[in-house]
Amino acid sequence: MTSIETANDETPLAIVCGAGTLPFTVAETVERSGRRVVIYALRGWADPKLAARYPHQWGGLGQFGRLCRFAREHGCHDVVFIGGVVRPSLWRVLPDWGSIRVLPRIIAAYRGGDDHLLKSLGAIFEEQGFRLVGAHEIAPEILVTEGVLGAVQPADCDRGDIARGLALLDAISPFDVGQAAVVAGNHVLAVEGAEGTDAMLARIAELRKIGRIPASRGTGVLVKAPKAGQDRRFDLPSIGPQTIAGIANAGLAGVAVVAGGTVIAEPDAIVMAANRAKVFIVGIPESGRKQ
Amino acid sequence: MTSIETANDETPLAIVCGAGTLPFTVAETVERSGRRVVIYALRGWADPKLAARYPHQWGGLGQFGRLCRFAREHGCHDVVFIGGVVRPSLWRVLPDWGSIRVLPRIIAAYRGGDDHLLKSLGAIFEEQGFRLVGAHEIAPEILVTEGVLGAVQPADCDRGDIARGLALLDAISPFDVGQAAVVAGNHVLAVEGAEGTDAMLARIAELRKIGRIPASRGTGVLVKAPKAGQDRRFDLPSIGPQTIAGIANAGLAGVAVVAGGTVIAEPDAIVMAANRAKVFIVGIPESGRKQ
Repeated sequence: MTSIETANDETPLAIVCGAGTLPFTVAETVERSGRRVVIYALRGWADPKLAARYPHQWGGLGQFGRLCRFAREHGCHDVVFIGGVVRPSLWRVLPDWGSIRVLPRIIAAYRGGDDHLLKSLGAIFEEQGFRLVGAHEIAPEILVTEGVLGAVQPADCDRGDIARGLALLDAISPFDVGQAAVVAGNHVLAVEGAEGTDAMLARIAELRKIGRIPASRGTGVLVKAPKAGQDRRFDLPSIGPQTIAGIANAGLAGVAVVAGGTVIAEPDAIVMAANRAKVFIVGIPESGRKQ
Repeated sequence: MTSIETANDETPLAIVCGAGTLPFTVAETVERSGRRVVIYALRGWADPKLAARYPHQWGGLGQFGRLCRFAREHGCHDVVFIGGVVRPSLWRVLPDWGSIRVLPRIIAAYRGGDDHLLKSLGAIFEEQGFRLVGAHEIAPEILVTEGVLGAVQPADCDRGDIARGLALLDAISPFDVGQAAVVAGNHVLAVEGAEGTDAMLARIAELRKIGRIPASRGTGVLVKAPKAGQDRRFDLPSIGPQTIAGIANAGLAGVAVVAGGTVIAEPDAIVMAANRAKVFIVGIPESGRKQ
C-alpha cells in the first residue's frame, strides 16, 4: 500500500458526501487548516447548495469507477465518507460497480450487517490505491468531548438510565444492529433498528401522546454509542440539531453519547438549541461504558 | 399459602381479561374441560361482546380491592391474567389500589422493567389468598408446539435469521425489553420496545415502502421468545391473526416462536391465514434457543 505512505496533507481531501450538514462542517474545518477539499456528492443525499461551494461532482454510492476517477483527477489520496446514507439495496449498488471482479465480494459483504458491509467496501477501495480515513482523524474537533455540553445537567436518575442504555447497546453490539436506545425510569422504551434515531424518537413522541409511556415528561435519555469493535472510519454515531428537536418532542431529559466516539454537527447551534429546550447533552468517557 | 393447596378445579377460574381474543380462547377451553369461568373485564381493553357471554364484572387493572372482592364472591382461588394490557402509567394505577400498605411496593415495582412489575404485582396478589396461574398451565392447548404449523416451510436462509433473532433476544433478555425482533438476510431490522409487535411490523412495512429495507420481499422473519427467567404466568409472547396480517404486510417470510413458551390465539384461523398469505409459522424447541 504505497498510497498510505505517500498520503499527506498536501493532497486535497476527497469527501464522499451523504446527507446532513456534517460533511460540510468537516470540509470547513479541513479548509481552515489549509488543506483543500473536493466533494463527491451522493445523488439523493448530499445538499446541493452546500456542495456547490466546493469543487464537486455528483454520483451514486455504487458508481465506484466514477468515484475513483474523480478522486484521481484531483490528485487525492485520502478519502472520507461522511453523512447519512441509508444502506442501499444490493440491486441499486450492483449495476454501477466498476469492476466485475469485486462483485462476489460485494455480495458476500451484503450478507453481514452494516458494519461488515462498510468494512468490505473499505478494503476494496483501499486496493485501488486510496487511503480511507475517518472524519474523526482529520477533524477531531467534530467529536463530542467528555462531560456536560451546555447549561443543563443530567440528574441522578438520568445517570441510571444512561448506564442501563450503554449496557444494553453493549449487549447488542455483536448483532450489528442500531447504535441508540431510549431508556426512562430504568425501563428500555426503544431500541434503534433500520428506522434510525430520528424515527425512533418520533415513535416515543407518538407513544407518549397515546399514554403508553409510563415515565413522566422530562425523564428518559437517548443513549448513543458506537458498536464495540466498529471500524470508526465509517458511520460513527452523530447528533445534530434535529436530534435535540426529536428529544424535546419525545419529552426526554437529554442525550448521552460516548465521548470521542460520536460526531456533533454544528456544535454551537446544537448547544444553543439544547439550552433552549432544557435538554442535557453529556459525553460519557469511553472507560465509563462498562459500569 | 393454604390457598395453593386448596385450589382445585372445582372452583371457578377468574380470568382478568385484557385485549384480544386470547382470553376467550382460554375461557372456552377451560369451560370445555368442565370448569366454570368468571371474567374480570378490564375497562378499555376487554372485548365487551365476548365478555358478555360469561359471568363478568368490569373494572380497572388498578382496582385491586374490587378485583379481590369479585374473585371471592365467586369462590375463586385461581386467577389468571390474559390478553394485551399496556403497562399503565403509575398515576393511573395508584389511586385505586385497595390498600395503602402496598403502595411503596408498587412504586418500587415500577422502577424495574415490565417483568419486575408483574412479578411484584403477582406476589402482592398471592398474599390476598389467591393463586396466580399461567394461561399455559390451565390450557396448555393454547401453546405453540414444536415444528411447522400450516403448509409453508421456512427456507434455509430463514433458519439463519431465526437463529440470529433468538440469540439477539437472549442477549437483551436481562434488560427486560421487548420479546420480539425482525431479522432479514442476517441483518437485524427492528427490536421491539414499548410500541409492541404490531407497531414494529407496521414500521417494517413503512420502511419497505420507502426503500429502506435491503432484503427483498418474502425474506425476513419475526422472531418472538419469552425473556429468559421470565415468570411465565404473565405476559407470554403471543401470536394472533393480526400478527400474520402484519407479517404479510411487512413482506416477511414468516414467524418463529419458542415452542411451549408462546400462546396462539385462534390457532385454526391463524394457520388458515398463514397458508393464504404464504407465511410460515414455526415453533422452535426451547433447547434450540441457544445454538
